[in-house]
Amino acid sequence: MTTTQALPIVDGATRLYGIIGDPIQQVKSPEVFTARFRAAGVNALLVPMHVKPETFDDVVRGLKSLANLDGLIATVPYKSRVLPFADRLFPTGERVGAINALRREADGRWAGEMFDGKGCVAGMRATGVDPRGRDVMLVGAGGAGSAIADAVAEAGAKSLSIFDADEGKARQVVARVARAHGACATSFGAPTTEGKQVLINATPIGMAPGDGLPVPDLRLTRDLFVVDVIVKDATPLVAASRAAGCRTMTGRSMIEGQAAEMARFFGLP
Amino acid sequence: MTTTQALPIVDGATRLYGIIGDPIQQVKSPEVFTARFRAAGVNALLVPMHVKPETFDDVVRGLKSLANLDGLIATVPYKSRVLPFADRLFPTGERVGAINALRREADGRWAGEMFDGKGCVAGMRATGVDPRGRDVMLVGAGGAGSAIADAVAEAGAKSLSIFDADEGKARQVVARVARAHGACATSFGAPTTEGKQVLINATPIGMAPGDGLPVPDLRLTRDLFVVDVIVKDATPLVAASRAAGCRTMTGRSMIEGQAAEMARFFGLP
Repeated sequence: MTTTQALPIVDGATRLYGIIGDPIQQVKSPEVFTARFRAAGVNALLVPMHVKPETFDDVVRGLKSLANLDGLIATVPYKSRVLPFADRLFPTGERVGAINALRREADGRWAGEMFDGKGCVAGMRATGVDPRGRDVMLVGAGGAGSAIADAVAEAGAKSLSIFDADEGKARQVVARVARAHGACATSFGAPTTEGKQVLINATPIGMAPGDGLPVPDLRLTRDLFVVDVIVKDATPLVAASRAAGCRTMTGRSMIEGQAAEMARFFGLP
Repeated sequence: MTTTQALPIVDGATRLYGIIGDPIQQVKSPEVFTARFRAAGVNALLVPMHVKPETFDDVVRGLKSLANLDGLIATVPYKSRVLPFADRLFPTGERVGAINALRREADGRWAGEMFDGKGCVAGMRATGVDPRGRDVMLVGAGGAGSAIADAVAEAGAKSLSIFDADEGKARQVVARVARAHGACATSFGAPTTEGKQVLINATPIGMAPGDGLPVPDLRLTRDLFVVDVIVKDATPLVAASRAAGCRTMTGRSMIEGQAAEMARFFGLP
């Protein structure tokens, strides 16, 4: 018998955490975090909170005032929209301009941070590939790509090249990463795996049935580590990479890595 | 194995119910209702929601917009304050001017109802004493007393006498009950058990350590059924009534009766 067994599912003293998104049914955080709380003997639940865009401001304002709610996770489509509800930002959230976690601080104010990139790096490390000293090709400079670029550079990548179909986006992210992490050599332009040890897809291409590769004609050599942020067992990119003998990592490992980082942010051991 | 075992504690598809109050730690509804949901195989949780008075309007407005929140229970001190947040009222809530349950209707609007009195009557019936045809003495015409007066009269009490230290309150409740339930003979004035079969305490006297009887010199005869709304195993009134040989009922039975009524309101079998 551990302390887990002694915890009720919920009682009057239960502390709350929520994940806000639209849609919400598919999210895994309620199970993942609630299991972590219980394993640590903490009387807390993370519950799904379905927030429609037209009521977003009302709901978030209300939730922040709920005295036994200690944290919020934001998922699609709210990672940028929730930013102004943070009373203060941790460095990554500040740099990336989006957050996916908010916690109530001791003084009652809310602090926000972005874990998408940290989760990707944690997942890479758990898979046995540390970005430190590597040359990384990142495809996609949207919300996820922007966070991953920051985290990979912060983790000590030797170089980072970014491609986005919208070149302006890639340029912006490169400029931001260069400013924050000067030791990482940054560039943008046509995608290539030449001289790279890590390829990361941070576009949604591969999610929909019928999708192909995010970049059609990339050379996949067996020494390449291929990361796809999409939460699927095998996107076309992952399947092609495995066929070429590459080691791969999917969005699932990113989610697990992120859960560990966020749990720490929420004060769990 | 029943369906109960197959339900996760919480996942992305979990529907939410909340109980709002201040303080909140002591409430029993989260355990009681969550057990009912699980027993019925419904993936839903009722969670505690600690709402401070200064943020009440913001929080309730936000919660009403949470798309996977289907119901709210209101407890002390919010049974009157939550009333304007109901888009429509069921008859008891309308008459009593306070509600303690709100549910989202099929059209997305919120309907409110008051179950304090219904819970008391359900508890009486479960204890084996139906108010129908009885002569009832009610002490206390505040929030709980007002709801109980309405429910006892609605349940077919032959007569209802109400005493409150504030005579104006007793007078108001009597007038309201008389208007709604003409078949019940209503009166207010000095408390007595003469010719009564049921005595109900709906004041908070007996809750604090050192409290005495709500009315010091009432004659407690063994044919009297004594109800105390206070959730304690034995208030001074209950102890004295038992010593006099009376059958008694405490606030716990009222809570159980109320849970059954509210569960039906929330769509449970």
